[in-house]
Amino acid sequence: MYTCVPFKQVDVFTAAPYKGNPVAVVNLMDKDESEYSTEYLQSIANWTNLSETTFLLKPTKLNCDYKLRIFTPASELPFAGHPTVGSCWAFHEFTGKTGNSLTYQECGLGVVEITRTGETLLFKAAKADIEEISHAEVDAYEEVLNTKFLEPAKLLQVGPKWIVCLVKDAEICYNLEPDFQKMKEYNTKFNATGLIVAGKKQGEDAYEMRAFAPAEGVSEDPVCGSGALALARCLQSVHNFQATYSFKIYQGGRLGRKGQINAIIEHVDSGINYKVGGRAVTVVDGTIKF
Amino acid sequence: MYTCVPFKQVDVFTAAPYKGNPVAVVNLMDKDESEYSTEYLQSIANWTNLSETTFLLKPTKLNCDYKLRIFTPASELPFAGHPTVGSCWAFHEFTGKTGNSLTYQECGLGVVEITRTGETLLFKAAKADIEEISHAEVDAYEEVLNTKFLEPAKLLQVGPKWIVCLVKDAEICYNLEPDFQKMKEYNTKFNATGLIVAGKKQGEDAYEMRAFAPAEGVSEDPVCGSGALALARCLQSVHNFQATYSFKIYQGGRLGRKGQINAIIEHVDSGINYKVGGRAVTVVDGTIKF
Repeated sequence: MYTCVPFKQVDVFTAAPYKGNPVAVVNLMDKDESEYSTEYLQSIANWTNLSETTFLLKPTKLNCDYKLRIFTPASELPFAGHPTVGSCWAFHEFTGKTGNSLTYQECGLGVVEITRTGETLLFKAAKADIEEISHAEVDAYEEVLNTKFLEPAKLLQVGPKWIVCLVKDAEICYNLEPDFQKMKEYNTKFNATGLIVAGKKQGEDAYEMRAFAPAEGVSEDPVCGSGALALARCLQSVHNFQATYSFKIYQGGRLGRKGQINAIIEHVDSGINYKVGGRAVTVVDGTIKF
Repeated sequence: MYTCVPFKQVDVFTAAPYKGNPVAVVNLMDKDESEYSTEYLQSIANWTNLSETTFLLKPTKLNCDYKLRIFTPASELPFAGHPTVGSCWAFHEFTGKTGNSLTYQECGLGVVEITRTGETLLFKAAKADIEEISHAEVDAYEEVLNTKFLEPAKLLQVGPKWIVCLVKDAEICYNLEPDFQKMKEYNTKFNATGLIVAGKKQGEDAYEMRAFAPAEGVSEDPVCGSGALALARCLQSVHNFQATYSFKIYQGGRLGRKGQINAIIEHVDSGINYKVGGRAVTVVDGTIKF
């Protein structure tokens, strides 16, 4: 009844095992997607208990290398950042394509372009829309985090719907003690995936960042790629940069991690590209019952 | 710097993958325990994000088959139930000893005897002490769970320090919506691992059970062996059974699982043995960086 399929658990946004954000990657590229249900994939993601579990599938779109389905313990996502980096890393290992490359990932949000240089992967945002939110919602999140924001919080649609909150500095961000019960209520009420909170490090092009998604069953995500993308888009809106701006994001310290994300707000002739990425390392390697 | 060691992620208290409680088992039987720190083992358990991660080590006590160290994402435990069943299952697979057997596990609590019959493993309690708690503490937990108890809740020292709360019936237990923030505060204040809540199924020797340990970083544990042991010891205290009593525990329904635990209150000439166990199945099989 059950067979064994290839499986990797990859640590993302770190080169050192156990310091990044893990993603479980199930390789179903030899299987037919119509043979199993969404409910079954969801039950596997609930069981691994990681912030995300992904399934590598045969691509259905021309010129794509693979199709990716991404699940939290509670639901399916059209896109997510660290699972994209970790799943592309696993795809390269599964297929032996570990040289410099351009890889195209098909997912719920569309096609995502991933550039590999050495052991660093960067994905380009397929979508990064910014929207104002109501004063009532901003006030609710200031209450939940018990701090004032530098700018009114914004809704960033990058696949997940992140509320981005800029606080005074890196230290205040690091020390936040959110009320998760209330945050869950407000996220559900206002239909947001969760909160991205960031504070700048003095004298550095770098931010301390934290990501919270209690309504998705993940109180705090250790290192969050789509959150980094949301932050980059939000910073462009706030600072109106006129040339390419690169910065680093540090995340996960409160959870004993040491995640590092590279973010690039790339100004090109055709407009602005948002790119986010970092290192990855395969920690668990084997098979999983399916 | 890193090597790969054998690794299994075992689903416990179920014969069907993804319906029980997973435990990650790292096989260090070929390693020297003095070569790595407790902090490092803890960081691995934090990373897997499972309720427990265990490390199989060379035994140091005579007649023991292996030594087991058990970690939640937040701390080390002297004993835990489903990790004992899952780790013994993994030990049998690693060593090819999958026939009927008696296995002795060395752990923080002492030596635990595990009986294997076919594919069912039962462990015998090394410790199951029951204590009264204050009225104030009982009241606090009734507030947290928003229900009245059939009997004043008791403290069960079975390795973890569980507060066992008996509620009116199985349905009430299943439908509880605890206040996790408050539970975490009270568990920390009163120095308990968490709460075990159980309600009897009408007309069956069976209980619906739930296990909560928010102060340990695990809001709800899907299927909990040491909790089952605590429940068995508590029921003996309440009902004063004069002969061997066996019952089933159903757990995990609210989390999409379908866990089944066998519990035996075994009356023998020398006194009473408490035995708890069930089935297990290896889901992930491979190596982990160490």
